[in-house]
Amino acid sequence: MTKAIFYHAGCPVCVEAEQMILDYLDKSKTTTEVVHLGTDQNRIEEAEKAGVKSVPALVIGKAVYHINFGASLADVKG
Amino acid sequence: MTKAIFYHAGCPVCVEAEQMILDYLDKSKTTTEVVHLGTDQNRIEEAEKAGVKSVPALVIGKAVYHINFGASLADVKG
Repeated sequence: MTKAIFYHAGCPVCVEAEQMILDYLDKSKTTTEVVHLGTDQNRIEEAEKAGVKSVPALVIGKAVYHINFGASLADVKG
Repeated sequence: MTKAIFYHAGCPVCVEAEQMILDYLDKSKTTTEVVHLGTDQNRIEEAEKAGVKSVPALVIGKAVYHINFGASLADVKG
């Protein structure tokens, strides 16, 4: 199983992307964790280290996929 | 089954995103078509109408997901 982490901040673009991830990511190959960086600010550093620049973003293994653009990580930090 | 179309132009960013799509998109829920807009230029208009602004992009149903940024559609038109 590959670990997939979906980072978001509750923005409309994030919600739409999350729906796609939850609906269409292959559950037989991945364990998916959803992290709301707005409420879980202590995960921001981990996201940055993984290469996340903006949300929504999906990290699968070592690869980062920014899916559309909701907000920069700087904005999420507020 | 939901129709999923992955539009790309052969760029390195596109190739990495395509790998994720092919590896992790749930095959029991989607039929996936991969379209190379560089070689299949007659599909560019269709991609534009679906809302694709840059490649790589994934269109699932009516939703468009731009995954990272490889090239603008204008650049693909050359």
